[in-house]
Amino acid sequence: MSAPKTQETVEKVISLSKRKGFVFQSSEIYGGLNGCWDYGPLGAEMLKNLKEEWWKFMTYRSDVEGLDASILMAPEVWKASGHVENFTDPMIDCKVCKSRFRVDYLLELINQKKKVKMLETAAAGIPALADEISAVLKSAGENGSGIDEYLEDKFDQISALPEISAELTCPKCGNKGSFTSARKFNLMFKTFLGPVEDSGNIIFLRPETAQGIFVNFLNVQNATRQKLPFGIAQIGKAFRNEINTRYFLFRTREFEQMEMQFFVKPADDKKWFDYWKEERLNWFKALGMNPSKLRYHDHPANKLAHYAKEATDIEYEFPFGWGEIEGIHNRTDFDLGRHEEFSGKSLKYFDEESKEKFVPYIIETSAGASRSFMAFLIDSYDEDEVNGEKRTVLRLHPRLAPVKAAVLPLVNKDGMPEIAQKIENEIKRSYKVFYDDKGAIGRRYRRMDEVGTPYAITIDNQTLEDNTVTVRERDSMEQVRIDSSKILSYLHEKILK
Amino acid sequence: MSAPKTQETVEKVISLSKRKGFVFQSSEIYGGLNGCWDYGPLGAEMLKNLKEEWWKFMTYRSDVEGLDASILMAPEVWKASGHVENFTDPMIDCKVCKSRFRVDYLLELINQKKKVKMLETAAAGIPALADEISAVLKSAGENGSGIDEYLEDKFDQISALPEISAELTCPKCGNKGSFTSARKFNLMFKTFLGPVEDSGNIIFLRPETAQGIFVNFLNVQNATRQKLPFGIAQIGKAFRNEINTRYFLFRTREFEQMEMQFFVKPADDKKWFDYWKEERLNWFKALGMNPSKLRYHDHPANKLAHYAKEATDIEYEFPFGWGEIEGIHNRTDFDLGRHEEFSGKSLKYFDEESKEKFVPYIIETSAGASRSFMAFLIDSYDEDEVNGEKRTVLRLHPRLAPVKAAVLPLVNKDGMPEIAQKIENEIKRSYKVFYDDKGAIGRRYRRMDEVGTPYAITIDNQTLEDNTVTVRERDSMEQVRIDSSKILSYLHEKILK
Repeated sequence: MSAPKTQETVEKVISLSKRKGFVFQSSEIYGGLNGCWDYGPLGAEMLKNLKEEWWKFMTYRSDVEGLDASILMAPEVWKASGHVENFTDPMIDCKVCKSRFRVDYLLELINQKKKVKMLETAAAGIPALADEISAVLKSAGENGSGIDEYLEDKFDQISALPEISAELTCPKCGNKGSFTSARKFNLMFKTFLGPVEDSGNIIFLRPETAQGIFVNFLNVQNATRQKLPFGIAQIGKAFRNEINTRYFLFRTREFEQMEMQFFVKPADDKKWFDYWKEERLNWFKALGMNPSKLRYHDHPANKLAHYAKEATDIEYEFPFGWGEIEGIHNRTDFDLGRHEEFSGKSLKYFDEESKEKFVPYIIETSAGASRSFMAFLIDSYDEDEVNGEKRTVLRLHPRLAPVKAAVLPLVNKDGMPEIAQKIENEIKRSYKVFYDDKGAIGRRYRRMDEVGTPYAITIDNQTLEDNTVTVRERDSMEQVRIDSSKILSYLHEKILK
Repeated sequence: MSAPKTQETVEKVISLSKRKGFVFQSSEIYGGLNGCWDYGPLGAEMLKNLKEEWWKFMTYRSDVEGLDASILMAPEVWKASGHVENFTDPMIDCKVCKSRFRVDYLLELINQKKKVKMLETAAAGIPALADEISAVLKSAGENGSGIDEYLEDKFDQISALPEISAELTCPKCGNKGSFTSARKFNLMFKTFLGPVEDSGNIIFLRPETAQGIFVNFLNVQNATRQKLPFGIAQIGKAFRNEINTRYFLFRTREFEQMEMQFFVKPADDKKWFDYWKEERLNWFKALGMNPSKLRYHDHPANKLAHYAKEATDIEYEFPFGWGEIEGIHNRTDFDLGRHEEFSGKSLKYFDEESKEKFVPYIIETSAGASRSFMAFLIDSYDEDEVNGEKRTVLRLHPRLAPVKAAVLPLVNKDGMPEIAQKIENEIKRSYKVFYDDKGAIGRRYRRMDEVGTPYAITIDNQTLEDNTVTVRERDSMEQVRIDSSKILSYLHEKILK
């Protein structure tokens, strides 16, 4: 049914977002703030709906508890988590124009042959890496797989060779061989707590919400008396000082996460990893995301993060390529173990059955609220033809749709507006509703289709006679006639079920 | 009915909050982070309910739109708003122990007579202020009203006199006369955007959500085609680097606001100010807050903020005194005027009726979500006696209560758990529900009373015969018997209406 999604679709979605009030550039009147976005009236409502769906799905069950931890946390948290030391990107500066680039961006600009040559040079110049590099080159084969990742990973060592630096051209000023060697740049935003700006008062904006859950494991377990397995879920903002933001809401500096940490007995890790992997994919499908655009991407063993035993991304096929919208990770006992070590507090769980004390394993489901929002928006965007005219329609699931119903009195006479307003008042106690009495009815339908409103209720001459109204469904455009007193229960049934 | 609230009540609420999972200290295993709090499972749910109530009340109406702007904004925003220049507290350092204090805190420690003497000394030593000081002293009278505020306001000038500095004793090290003169300290948290830490890259964590609305005025108006009067509402985190945090959630460094800016024709300002003043007070009352603990506090003309023409606080009588939980302000055209000036973009509204272009006036309603949460928690806390035993009960409005219903099978036999689980499954699709089959039924009721669960559903022997259950109401403790198939509609009626 849907039209294929292309790069043009993304541009149309961004334009629609601005025009109809889904997403605006942050601080736009001041030229915008790179990597930050504001959700307009429809976007704020849709994002809220998305988060509400996640919250109910994840926490309205007896084995998962909710949490809302603060964005500012004690700096020790980020030492324990490894972020202070490892949450870095290699960066490189042009000595001529002083521009700074992320290494992976510069590497993208270099062709494969040159990269192989770079590695060969490095193998000769850096004896400590020679064997490793030979192995990479050997296994790379014709398509050069693994070369990019290896270069990015080791570039802070490799770029020190003058021959390498000489190969690089600055994309900004065009000078060749003008680069410093690479340095690591921490992606956490830092600030100072209290009036004194010294290193003792540095705190960070959290780069992920997960740590707020780990440090509250004992608090939540004590308060709720939960037994393993159980989870803690939270939704909240996180911040990363990304150098290269891109793809609209895909990689931003301020974003929102929906994360759940499920604490399990170590022996049960595989079972729960598989359980949540399935649950989470099904969640996207149940909210109407096109199944053929969704896939798992399992991380190969040699690509796993240092804390992970197993990891899978749920990817959506954006017009610019497959992109992660959620990660499921077996984090083992790494996190609680590190926080035990750094805080000196025991974070062990006492199992009453086996009488054993141990640090639980953690299965994490980490979804991007902002990324999922973007995926749903793009996935739902469609164009078709109605009576020979082009129609733009967002085929959003009724639960995600920002406006649930439109109330449209056909003409402004004969008491129709009064009936329409009565209906509007009844609906708005439960749902966001839009009242529109301007223009031809076809145009009014189009306006609602374009923002994804699933139901349009029209009050016409027959309403005045028998108190019935028509309800038009957005996708099928079919109309049913129902008694006006039944509208709310009709909507409940369609939206809540 | 309610027991009087005392300082002890606050301590009991804080203790209950920790024990049952409403509020935890942030980063507690690392000794806590001053001025930041984490909401536990029950607190996160209650806070979410509170915000949801506000959102629906404020934005599910045709003349108010929602918004969700980013926390990081362009630095020019805070120049235009005046925060870079004026959002400061006077601070003073002890030269001996290097401790820094907010001036109002030090002033609290000095008795009234000494303060009068300070002002007399200042009047003699600072000719520029002599007349002003005489007027303050004259109008202060016996209770010394106005002296504290004046001293705080002018302390950066007054403290320069050696005679004043000599009067102050350091609360930390006990040295007398060891202070520097006062300096202004900006309360915004600052950080750096991008990899370079220089003054050109400083950005701030927003100290209020309002500016996100002002800078989006045109975007929202264009997208929605709203006409004056209309409002824009948003809920979000804000950050202030407070030196003296206090009173649990009352003054914190990270907090959440619920703000609405209503754009009106200048001539209509008084009408809408009065309208929103009443609406907002009624909102607190409708959610069950004790009306005798609520009052307006109108700001006298000489105390108005520089942008305000009229201002009223809605105050709640906390055990530690009356405290602001919401402010209603007539901000005139100050905000949009300043953003016009600093951005160079026209933020004028074109009125189609009068054919006039003008900068709208703004009536603001600014509520603290965290503060309101605390007020509702304290207000609902009660102790009474049931069958000769003390009962702790949170008399929370059903809409605010974190858990809406408890499902309690009387005994674990005869198929009761199966029926109970079926009921639990049905309820949890709509509401947070708690299943409890452990211990005597009286104790299970107490556990639910203590966390404010309004309805307890008991499955007993009669359920097995005729499929009815008892529903016990928390406050009256009255029980009704209803058919188990009617539970969800029973809850809908009680909670949604």
